[in-house]
Amino acid sequence: MPNPPAKPSPTLVCPVPLPAGAAVQLGHGSGGRLSQQLLGDVFLSTFDDPELATLKDGAVLPIGSSRLALSTDSFVVHPLFFPGGDIGSLAVHGTVNDLCMCGARPIALSAGFILEEGLPLHTLKQVVASMQRAAVEAGVRVVTGDTKVVEHGKGDGLYINTAGVGVIPEEVQVAPNRARPGDRVLINGPIGEHGIAVLSVREGLAFESPIVSDCASLVDLVARMLAAGGEGVHVLRDPTRGGVATAVYELAASARVGVTLNERAIPVADAVHGACELLGLDPLYVANEGKVVAWVDPSRAEAVLEAMRAHPLGAQAAIIGEVTAGPPGEVYLRSSIGSLRVLDLLSGEQLPRIC
Amino acid sequence: MPNPPAKPSPTLVCPVPLPAGAAVQLGHGSGGRLSQQLLGDVFLSTFDDPELATLKDGAVLPIGSSRLALSTDSFVVHPLFFPGGDIGSLAVHGTVNDLCMCGARPIALSAGFILEEGLPLHTLKQVVASMQRAAVEAGVRVVTGDTKVVEHGKGDGLYINTAGVGVIPEEVQVAPNRARPGDRVLINGPIGEHGIAVLSVREGLAFESPIVSDCASLVDLVARMLAAGGEGVHVLRDPTRGGVATAVYELAASARVGVTLNERAIPVADAVHGACELLGLDPLYVANEGKVVAWVDPSRAEAVLEAMRAHPLGAQAAIIGEVTAGPPGEVYLRSSIGSLRVLDLLSGEQLPRIC
Repeated sequence: MPNPPAKPSPTLVCPVPLPAGAAVQLGHGSGGRLSQQLLGDVFLSTFDDPELATLKDGAVLPIGSSRLALSTDSFVVHPLFFPGGDIGSLAVHGTVNDLCMCGARPIALSAGFILEEGLPLHTLKQVVASMQRAAVEAGVRVVTGDTKVVEHGKGDGLYINTAGVGVIPEEVQVAPNRARPGDRVLINGPIGEHGIAVLSVREGLAFESPIVSDCASLVDLVARMLAAGGEGVHVLRDPTRGGVATAVYELAASARVGVTLNERAIPVADAVHGACELLGLDPLYVANEGKVVAWVDPSRAEAVLEAMRAHPLGAQAAIIGEVTAGPPGEVYLRSSIGSLRVLDLLSGEQLPRIC
Repeated sequence: MPNPPAKPSPTLVCPVPLPAGAAVQLGHGSGGRLSQQLLGDVFLSTFDDPELATLKDGAVLPIGSSRLALSTDSFVVHPLFFPGGDIGSLAVHGTVNDLCMCGARPIALSAGFILEEGLPLHTLKQVVASMQRAAVEAGVRVVTGDTKVVEHGKGDGLYINTAGVGVIPEEVQVAPNRARPGDRVLINGPIGEHGIAVLSVREGLAFESPIVSDCASLVDLVARMLAAGGEGVHVLRDPTRGGVATAVYELAASARVGVTLNERAIPVADAVHGACELLGLDPLYVANEGKVVAWVDPSRAEAVLEAMRAHPLGAQAAIIGEVTAGPPGEVYLRSSIGSLRVLDLLSGEQLPRIC
């Protein structure tokens, strides 16, 4: 560990007053520093709820003798269709995966549609059919919904919100506060594919080998990881908007531990690597939609890795880093040549509207 | 009862193929006939879920030994602020009330925000503060959320989705299939105030007496109604988008009973009556956001009415009609002079974006 300079804790507790005349910027939707500021300044300080303040992928609520997980996401991806998925599959997998990250077995989804006047109905049908396929794949039902229509020019075809509920099995204990120094950081495969796939079709970029979104349901993979690792699986997070760097940074801040990632161990497909070099993007900050980052007790890490590799969504799973004693909330990347650099939150917007 | 002409059942079972080139119209968001067509053609036929097909205000799911209610609504009201409320209070009360209509005690909400680039942050703060006040009033927590940002011109300031969960007490049995001929139809007060309040500020109309939205949480009122009526409270529905006529029509179709409403008994404030005459609107189709329509066993109707009248949100409660043996799904309005007319769904859009 290097000796880093003292700096304020990155946890979100003290809202900074908003400058007069401030307005929403695209970066507020990035998942990076502006998103966190908005969260702290506007949402956490106003709603002031202890469960919301944990900043997990979903909330955990006691219902009778069960623990219920509740999660929501709105989807504004542009364009609606991209290699490997569309806004419909994304809207189902996104919320299903958030429930999985709470250790829950997803049960049911709600679906709220905001349609722009003029959207072709066959486009809507195609998206809804894709949602249904994704729901069947994930073993959840779409049980309730809502549709609103806004005038032409007040939307962008179609926005979808999904919210989901799931039940956390009694034996599962997954939460940032279970992180321990020494925990291994695992991921189930190569990073950055979703973001680059959406970007490629939006910007009309053609790469030598086409890049396909990793959009997928993690229900089965996570169940196998939990079966293999038991209570040794401490923390789960899907590195969506903001990528692996943001997910690990947020977890480290929330768990008040440090993390060191090993660049060489992080799987990145050649095509994504090439596209990122060309576009000046850092794959560590590019969104994934079928990836899980797990913090696992060192005694169970190999067993969980083996379970991941035995699953179709985990063939390239790897141990990519380790939780350290601190400083709390600091994430370091050990480069291929052995140097260490601090991984920070993005301050602006790298790729707008990729989910 | 008149002898009505035979016509096809209004329940939504058989999706009609979409005409080629068809596109979303504002009327698809009206809650009327176009909304029902969209629901049948696109959503029910694709998701094909028995709980979704009940078309209740929310879904009921068994969780352990509890019954969970799950509901969602997206809010696109324009303008964001109106007399008596704003998009924030509406987003909380709307979903809370939907849970109440399932007979549930609301517990927690998720909140998904779609922000348009350029939205003043103080506007967002004002809306979020209003949500928190409404949540406290309704006794629910906002426990999880999501924020997305779209480019300027791809939204209209701010859209909010809320989803909510609640638990249905063991003794409560509220569902359209519990409707029985002879049930009395009750409402807790004058109709049409929300729709006219939003319209007045949007169109810059000044009425002699200002019309204020009835936007309110029905949690406490419904709890008192259930306490007074017990299992005699058969069906609950909040007559929001599409108004009382649409709500009663949908319930009659779903329960496969008839309903006769007595025009003279339906409370309408003079100001709303006047505004509707001026604007050519029918108050029966104008949205409410703090009203409940209850179908109650005749033996309990007076007790429930009394409980409603003892509540601040039910001072003008009234029995406005009766459930009949049929024909299934037909709703009649007995006019002040005693003639009967069929109440149908609106075919187009009366008031876009009032919720």
